[in-house]
Amino acid sequence: MPIIESIPNVSEGRRPDVIERLAHAIRQTPGVRLLDHSADASHNRSVFTLAGDAAAVKAATLALFAVALDAIDLRQHRGEHPRLGAVDVVPFVPIEGVSMAECVALARDVGAAIGERFQVPVFLYEEASTSPARKNLEDIRRGEFEGLAARMASAGWAPDFGPATPHGTAGASVIGARMPLIAYNINLNTDRLEVAKKIATAIRHSSGGLRYVKAMGVKLDDRHLAQVSMNLTNYEKTPIFRVFEMVKREAARYGVAILESEVVGLVPAAALVRSAEFYLQLERFGDDQILEKKLRDR
Amino acid sequence: MPIIESIPNVSEGRRPDVIERLAHAIRQTPGVRLLDHSADASHNRSVFTLAGDAAAVKAATLALFAVALDAIDLRQHRGEHPRLGAVDVVPFVPIEGVSMAECVALARDVGAAIGERFQVPVFLYEEASTSPARKNLEDIRRGEFEGLAARMASAGWAPDFGPATPHGTAGASVIGARMPLIAYNINLNTDRLEVAKKIATAIRHSSGGLRYVKAMGVKLDDRHLAQVSMNLTNYEKTPIFRVFEMVKREAARYGVAILESEVVGLVPAAALVRSAEFYLQLERFGDDQILEKKLRDR
Repeated sequence: MPIIESIPNVSEGRRPDVIERLAHAIRQTPGVRLLDHSADASHNRSVFTLAGDAAAVKAATLALFAVALDAIDLRQHRGEHPRLGAVDVVPFVPIEGVSMAECVALARDVGAAIGERFQVPVFLYEEASTSPARKNLEDIRRGEFEGLAARMASAGWAPDFGPATPHGTAGASVIGARMPLIAYNINLNTDRLEVAKKIATAIRHSSGGLRYVKAMGVKLDDRHLAQVSMNLTNYEKTPIFRVFEMVKREAARYGVAILESEVVGLVPAAALVRSAEFYLQLERFGDDQILEKKLRDR
Repeated sequence: MPIIESIPNVSEGRRPDVIERLAHAIRQTPGVRLLDHSADASHNRSVFTLAGDAAAVKAATLALFAVALDAIDLRQHRGEHPRLGAVDVVPFVPIEGVSMAECVALARDVGAAIGERFQVPVFLYEEASTSPARKNLEDIRRGEFEGLAARMASAGWAPDFGPATPHGTAGASVIGARMPLIAYNINLNTDRLEVAKKIATAIRHSSGGLRYVKAMGVKLDDRHLAQVSMNLTNYEKTPIFRVFEMVKREAARYGVAILESEVVGLVPAAALVRSAEFYLQLERFGDDQILEKKLRDR
């Protein structure tokens, strides 16, 4: 049974009754499991994590849109987090027994349905994107809901599906396919923020570093520590252990060591298994040697 | 659904029809999956790997004994591997949702049934053992089938279940509970066997090393390499990474480096995840952060 994960981000983080209706729409969809959901009042945004096969995930997404369009009016929405639509972003992530190509196909299928059924413009992003300028979420979301009408009137910003102008209350939605994202932080044994910032600059893709790393330096005031805070957007091509070793080397340049690292939220088992393989210099190892996997597959 | 693994070792590795009957007895037991089986002609011995809950694993073990007692006569059995019985050893291993105490209870339950139904004496071993002298398989098996009658007549060697004298054709069986065993080898970038032997002596429990390591030095003639060949008998208490680091340090003492390591057969995911945690200095990590586990548990 193939498993696709989806992590819809919805522009509502303050009204418990609406958040519960959104969660309920997912939970009541047959074949779908709601794995997690969290709401942030200052962001005024909720993040849901759900899983199922393509048909089930599609049904849950449509059910979620129906509630969001009924309950959310972006004209009234204020919050710290940038957003373009009532259902702001919907990524589909291949987990087990399913390819990236199938997740891209699902993004197109769901996008077409959203455009038609709800008259919400849809932009495809990441692996599903139809132009390099519309691959990154940040690029698509620039100007936010308030700037959306002007944006969509400009060249190159016709949506992939749905009407050519924003939905009055729900704006537009960004739907796509991507690898699992790993939120990974490394804490340094120093409180010097500038060291964390220099390391972040060295390792992140945008300033010359590793292809699938987003990074910034932050200060953990309560612990008197500087942290390199990262998103790893493709752990197969830019694995955790390589990031860890590069941060360690850069830190040593400033006389600083790694105190600890942490994974925030979920991580695919393979990301950790690849790290064990690297450090243990494991050769001729296959995932079918993992006992639990063997037990499940038979 | 709890999962117990069992790896019965049977004293038959040459007659394909008997081996197939043994495998069939396991396969046809409801609720049991036969994950693997292999036969070794020079050892004249077969190893089966099966999994299921306690009731299913018990039923499969009884079915296996019935075939073995019908088909195997240890008086005729010759092979390189030491053995005490037709069904020589039956370990029960806790894998998922089951404790070691439950596996010990299963060993007692199955042992009592074997003693009564088949009139085969049963010695409990490892975590299920009833005396320190009968904890290790090698200690129980000393003297083998041929020396068994004399052994059982001596003080301290009354069986835990079944008659006080060996079964005429099936000898005795050793049944117990243990942690998953990991067959783990480290290849050195040298062909000097004496280096591998010195490292094995340093790290193994029997000569002063780590508590849950069995090790020997061997030569891989075809690859012109020396190897430290190990069994890790409790990866929770003596983890892979600690063994790897200790071998690396001992090898450096002789100017030798680790070329590679390998896991032979199956390994619990946790053994690799703990290694990733160690090297990545991961803190505040829980197995419920592993995506696949989260997906299965909900």
